[in-house]
Amino acid sequence: MESPARPAPVPTALLYYVAFSQLLGLAVVAMTGTWLGVYRGGIAWESALQFNVHPLCMIIGLVFLQGDALLVYRVFRNEAKRTTKILHGLLHLFAFVIALVAQSSRDPRLRPGLVAVFDYHRKEGYADLYSLHSWCGILVFVLFFVQWLVGFSFFLFPGASFSLRSRYRPQHVFLGGAIFLLSVGTALLGLKEALLFELGTKYSKFEPEGVLANVLGLLLAAFGAVVLYILTRADWKRPLQAEEQALSMDFKTLTEGDSPSSQ
Amino acid sequence: MESPARPAPVPTALLYYVAFSQLLGLAVVAMTGTWLGVYRGGIAWESALQFNVHPLCMIIGLVFLQGDALLVYRVFRNEAKRTTKILHGLLHLFAFVIALVAQSSRDPRLRPGLVAVFDYHRKEGYADLYSLHSWCGILVFVLFFVQWLVGFSFFLFPGASFSLRSRYRPQHVFLGGAIFLLSVGTALLGLKEALLFELGTKYSKFEPEGVLANVLGLLLAAFGAVVLYILTRADWKRPLQAEEQALSMDFKTLTEGDSPSSQ
Repeated sequence: MESPARPAPVPTALLYYVAFSQLLGLAVVAMTGTWLGVYRGGIAWESALQFNVHPLCMIIGLVFLQGDALLVYRVFRNEAKRTTKILHGLLHLFAFVIALVAQSSRDPRLRPGLVAVFDYHRKEGYADLYSLHSWCGILVFVLFFVQWLVGFSFFLFPGASFSLRSRYRPQHVFLGGAIFLLSVGTALLGLKEALLFELGTKYSKFEPEGVLANVLGLLLAAFGAVVLYILTRADWKRPLQAEEQALSMDFKTLTEGDSPSSQ
Repeated sequence: MESPARPAPVPTALLYYVAFSQLLGLAVVAMTGTWLGVYRGGIAWESALQFNVHPLCMIIGLVFLQGDALLVYRVFRNEAKRTTKILHGLLHLFAFVIALVAQSSRDPRLRPGLVAVFDYHRKEGYADLYSLHSWCGILVFVLFFVQWLVGFSFFLFPGASFSLRSRYRPQHVFLGGAIFLLSVGTALLGLKEALLFELGTKYSKFEPEGVLANVLGLLLAAFGAVVLYILTRADWKRPLQAEEQALSMDFKTLTEGDSPSSQ
């Protein structure tokens, strides 16, 4: 019997799966860039090309970086918990900022500078936030923001008690995974929207753009699945470090009276 | 300390969550019916209305019934494992048959009766299986079918050894959850497709059909999330029954030499 407090080696299979997830994630980002570059005229902050900032930044922020932020506890198994937490929080922060940039390319009211609001030439009859993609997107944004704030104040801010943290942790973990999956789903809806708007009936003729985007969609789903697999495999969970182990034992002794494990 | 072999009561919170999931699932089915009835002329096996069989049956089979099939191990916690397994397998079988009916309404080659093939009036230039929705759908079908066959031969057919079952179980559980989530995602893509094809630019004017379908989409995502929450909560997992407990102990003793728990 080994004590779980001793630094355990990273399981080899975990390393392969993480490497595979990174390959998939990079392929998704590269393919999004290719799609926008080859079929949508590329990316620029000005003119109509500004809209292309949206899919690329969303894929980088809310898919790739968010996925990687969830994996840090599996990859950095033996580093101090606090360091890993800070990395987790920072990656989410980067993801959020990049997503905000992405959104600002869509919605000038979010763009830095008030002038941009007047800059906006609204197409006649065009409404904001009417589609399922946008509804899911707003939901992701709100949940992501609330989750980050609550996570920060519970786990990084020194105020929260150990007991409160222990009770909130499983909810935080589940909600984090759910927000990530909803992000992937929202990206798929957005991709579909972009294809149907632009290609229309040509989509059904196996246009190269449609095929490329379909492959991109499958890769997106695969990235989500591999990240989910790594997160849910019980034997790949981060082992408790020495000091966490001691705290956890104390806590168990203290609370054994009022929260029986059989409940 | 209680022995886990004693029938444990179903946790109250689990019951509430399961009830909530059923409400959501029924709301999704009812809303799909409403959408098709009010805005798409209802359902019939003949004429153009035949296409409306597809979304309704897919929602009933691959979303609602598949979700419920995953929940049986949480709900029937104290029944014999074999009975629960059979229920799990049967619910999946029903889901699959209903999905096949749904698919046959789309693709006449799958419809019972060869005549139906010649019956099909292919619109000029219309291709099958070009969209991301259809690609994801095929993936779901193939994975679902393989998962069912492998699951049946490992867990219900008496041939597989206990050791083999134990090794395959976590993969089966993960893949089952992933297929369910992919089914929900594919349904969302299909819904979006149906909206953009039919409503076109009217979608952006907050047409009642668009708003109803968006709400339906959010409910679908919520059903997926609640089922996932019930499945992943560690303290809601099905407790081992007396005979399983004994087997599991024997197995541990037998294999302790070659598969250390620290690996």
